[in-house]
Amino acid sequence: MKKLHLDLSERGYDIYVGRGLLSECKKYFNLSRKVFIVTDSGVPSEYAQTVRSMCDDATVVTVPMGEGSKSPETYTYLLEKMIEFGMTRSDCAVAVGGGVVGDLTGFAAASYMRGIDFYNIPTTVLSQVDSSIGGKVAINLGGIKNIVGAFHQPKGVIIDPDTLKTLPKRQIANGLCEALKMSLTSDGELFGLFEREEINEDNIEDVIVRSLMIKKAVVEADEREGGLRRILNFGHTFGHAVEAAEELRGYYHGECVAIGMLVTSSESVKARLIPVLKRLGLPYSYEGDVKGALGFISHDKKCEGGKVSVVFVDEPGSFRIEKMNTEDFIAHIEKAFS
Amino acid sequence: MKKLHLDLSERGYDIYVGRGLLSECKKYFNLSRKVFIVTDSGVPSEYAQTVRSMCDDATVVTVPMGEGSKSPETYTYLLEKMIEFGMTRSDCAVAVGGGVVGDLTGFAAASYMRGIDFYNIPTTVLSQVDSSIGGKVAINLGGIKNIVGAFHQPKGVIIDPDTLKTLPKRQIANGLCEALKMSLTSDGELFGLFEREEINEDNIEDVIVRSLMIKKAVVEADEREGGLRRILNFGHTFGHAVEAAEELRGYYHGECVAIGMLVTSSESVKARLIPVLKRLGLPYSYEGDVKGALGFISHDKKCEGGKVSVVFVDEPGSFRIEKMNTEDFIAHIEKAFS
Repeated sequence: MKKLHLDLSERGYDIYVGRGLLSECKKYFNLSRKVFIVTDSGVPSEYAQTVRSMCDDATVVTVPMGEGSKSPETYTYLLEKMIEFGMTRSDCAVAVGGGVVGDLTGFAAASYMRGIDFYNIPTTVLSQVDSSIGGKVAINLGGIKNIVGAFHQPKGVIIDPDTLKTLPKRQIANGLCEALKMSLTSDGELFGLFEREEINEDNIEDVIVRSLMIKKAVVEADEREGGLRRILNFGHTFGHAVEAAEELRGYYHGECVAIGMLVTSSESVKARLIPVLKRLGLPYSYEGDVKGALGFISHDKKCEGGKVSVVFVDEPGSFRIEKMNTEDFIAHIEKAFS
Repeated sequence: MKKLHLDLSERGYDIYVGRGLLSECKKYFNLSRKVFIVTDSGVPSEYAQTVRSMCDDATVVTVPMGEGSKSPETYTYLLEKMIEFGMTRSDCAVAVGGGVVGDLTGFAAASYMRGIDFYNIPTTVLSQVDSSIGGKVAINLGGIKNIVGAFHQPKGVIIDPDTLKTLPKRQIANGLCEALKMSLTSDGELFGLFEREEINEDNIEDVIVRSLMIKKAVVEADEREGGLRRILNFGHTFGHAVEAAEELRGYYHGECVAIGMLVTSSESVKARLIPVLKRLGLPYSYEGDVKGALGFISHDKKCEGGKVSVVFVDEPGSFRIEKMNTEDFIAHIEKAFS
């Protein structure tokens, strides 16, 4: 078992990583109070039941799987269930599932009585390496992702790689893409591991821990996204646009980020990145509607007053942030695809 | 013009109090960006128009007056309007109206893109002396007031007593009750003023400023309601229960707090408080359903695990906080009415 501490003074918390920790979560979380457990229909229901069995007074709410649950309606539904369960300020919520469950439950916990304790047990690679730590919680509105939310740090996070066993290969690749992203901006050695090795049961825990170390350092330096935290957006500015444009065709987040990374990497990085993407089964080119995707750029939260901060990687393990006019960034993308 | 600074380090802000300030708000707020103005149908529409006329790029959204607007539906509606208006993280929202408008707009601003700047221009006594500062923003759900919200400090507050001229007498008394409450726990001299004088156009600015000084000191000492901030709940534990029970009969918040204060004041304070309540036109006894009201006590956010912190006043300008079992508090109230 590895323990990482996120050092955010009074909002600091511990992240426990290790196989089988799910069934020991009582050791790490304070469950001697009302515990509101949220999971989704795509997560094996025994995970939430395992948590429930360790509580004196718990309830499990299961929302439909998928991004559609990050809606004002499901958010309000959770809050109504919290009231019904008679929760007070000293009770807590636990998310058991991927990023959707974590974001949704986290935002409900952030706003119920102006904030109650929130624990996160991410069960997908994507949420284990990325979204479960850092305190960004949100729902979607009007077709715009994460437009409504809060910064609400969890009180504790448990990452149990055993929960990944039931995930389809494509979902694993989707999550690994965020780890790959962090390696490119911040950890050349981790990128080397991606170049050399197939990621499997034996080394995935290492990949998770190394990714969390990067994210931890970034969040500690910049909790509320003023500066350094922007590097986490590497591949995301165009990636989000592709995601919005491709919504109906069902691209995964990580697949869009893969495309987004390619257009903001140097030629030499691109040459090394493409074989890695291929092996992971991630897209390494984009055949879709570039113009259509670019239309979404101006809706990106990061585009303020016609300006956008774009993260470029010229060498693995390093980055460069450029504040560009939105139209210059669009021109840059068009050139990349011409 | 009086300026008070709320000292909350990087979240600190200024409160400007003075007649005619509404038409000068451009001097005090940064309106050189997209400005999302929210008001309600009970507020003279020229107030919001005055603010709008000072902006380069503003929109005004008018919600129906009354507590019903503090709903998830109206909250979502505002967020949708913010998206439609194309707001980015560096834009701002301005509330022009009473507590409902301030709480609702504040919560929308707290969660849009995880928090944008929020300015408040309270136009009722209640919001001018109390709810406009302190950063507590919220909506209601399932019949429970303020159960969903955030701590989101405004970037600036303008209090223009001229906006009170159009208020009915009963609304003014409703607001003055919160000032009276603060005087009882924290400012014996202000209570003396309430005993000696009729509150009118000439002295209301003094009452507002003195009340704000109390609230400022309390919020600075305890931003997120861990300790001292509880004194602001004087009269509110039973007051909220009365408010819930009497909802259909249309009691105002201040009227319920008046009743709530009486049951947690010493006999000597009660003897001095009753004449003040009479002169203000506030209730000084409760003929309603005490048992029915007590049923709401356990739904109070402040009642955690069967315990409730109750604020008692034995002498004007002082207080005593007692952590009581909910049933003991209920017995105390029953005795007061027997």
